[in-house]
Amino acid sequence: MHHFFVAPSDVEQDRVFIKGSDARHIAKVLRLIKGDKITVSDGAKNLYKVELANVALNVVECRIIESISIETQPYFKLTLMQCLPKSSKMELVIQKGTELGVSCFVPLMCKRTIVKLDEKSIKTKLRRWKKIAYEAAKQSRRLTVPEVLEPISLREAIEKIDEKALILMPWEGEQAVLLKDVLSEYEKLNRAYVIIGPEGGFETEEVELAKKHNAKIVSLGKRIMRTETAGLYVASVLVYLFGE
Amino acid sequence: MHHFFVAPSDVEQDRVFIKGSDARHIAKVLRLIKGDKITVSDGAKNLYKVELANVALNVVECRIIESISIETQPYFKLTLMQCLPKSSKMELVIQKGTELGVSCFVPLMCKRTIVKLDEKSIKTKLRRWKKIAYEAAKQSRRLTVPEVLEPISLREAIEKIDEKALILMPWEGEQAVLLKDVLSEYEKLNRAYVIIGPEGGFETEEVELAKKHNAKIVSLGKRIMRTETAGLYVASVLVYLFGE
Repeated sequence: MHHFFVAPSDVEQDRVFIKGSDARHIAKVLRLIKGDKITVSDGAKNLYKVELANVALNVVECRIIESISIETQPYFKLTLMQCLPKSSKMELVIQKGTELGVSCFVPLMCKRTIVKLDEKSIKTKLRRWKKIAYEAAKQSRRLTVPEVLEPISLREAIEKIDEKALILMPWEGEQAVLLKDVLSEYEKLNRAYVIIGPEGGFETEEVELAKKHNAKIVSLGKRIMRTETAGLYVASVLVYLFGE
Repeated sequence: MHHFFVAPSDVEQDRVFIKGSDARHIAKVLRLIKGDKITVSDGAKNLYKVELANVALNVVECRIIESISIETQPYFKLTLMQCLPKSSKMELVIQKGTELGVSCFVPLMCKRTIVKLDEKSIKTKLRRWKKIAYEAAKQSRRLTVPEVLEPISLREAIEKIDEKALILMPWEGEQAVLLKDVLSEYEKLNRAYVIIGPEGGFETEEVELAKKHNAKIVSLGKRIMRTETAGLYVASVLVYLFGE
């Protein structure tokens, strides 16, 4: 069953209105018609099973058949802070991270970040990244679309972190502490941050700064992963251990 | 330190000879010179720290400084059987899977596989996939280059599997058994197969066939992952749990 997102304001009594490019997609690409059923999430905590009542290119009117209650218990929230990788690799991180269950992406600028973005290209990139997160959330039938924040410096990012959460920073220079050594201390977890360095790795002072803010510096083992792989690896492990 | 692979026959007493495009890469791209140190693996079980003795475009002669012993205990062997995904996604699976620690890739043809390959394009693809595995193994400093086999049918693949190993087949149709339910039964594991379906999923008879050969059918949870993400997710989890 196809899955779409709307804003809470698009839900009125027993009706849901899907607008813009999603309406066009329903009408022209998926060619759904009156009577077809889809699911719609308001991006917050409501999920609806709906029947299409009227399909037009600019707006699709749906009738709510069933309001599916979502567990309101705290769920696992995972923030992936990823130093901006080269070329289009951030897109891969956001698409795959969304499928895996990352809740929030924070693109980082570190000392050794190679990519330089001016204000205009940041806006373009951010728009594209949000669209990728949105599409991946639809495809993987997530209830919420993960946030993608504006790129900030590692220092700013670290200062904003909730230090009571688990903060993981994989680093090539760490030899003694494995990811497993840290994670095996937790039976349950509802909040984690993962901070991934750029192609050239973190500088020692960046690691020291993170340590001061309670980050756990870990080794991912003998294999060296590319920057975009490291974040997806740690996200996979965290979601497996704490996400269901 | 840069890392290269040679054939066992390229090692003679205290000398290692790096040939072909790798020699050219050392000389022209990395611009390494006499006296520089690198590591070389013979792709089997020997790892050498070497010093460059003579750099030429067609062959680089190295002197072995140190023979690094590798644990010869059984290690975790992971075979990823991946139904051929569309476009260049198999390349992503092989590159990322190699970084994560997959030992062998088996491209599969399933009932709903969309990609059709003739004999000529199989040869071209296979050459390219092997090169990607080789490059990713170098980059991630693995001791061995993972195998990439020729595409075969799901039936052929399943019949070749060692049924005493753990065989995992994630399937959308499975609701009751989670990946965790199966994996929590194992404390150690040295051999696993993961069978990943194509974009449209497995047909029921394919699942039944796998079950007969002792495969565990599992759900990856509520989120629907793309075919290329599912394999990398399961590989991440297995390598985390059993790989170090």
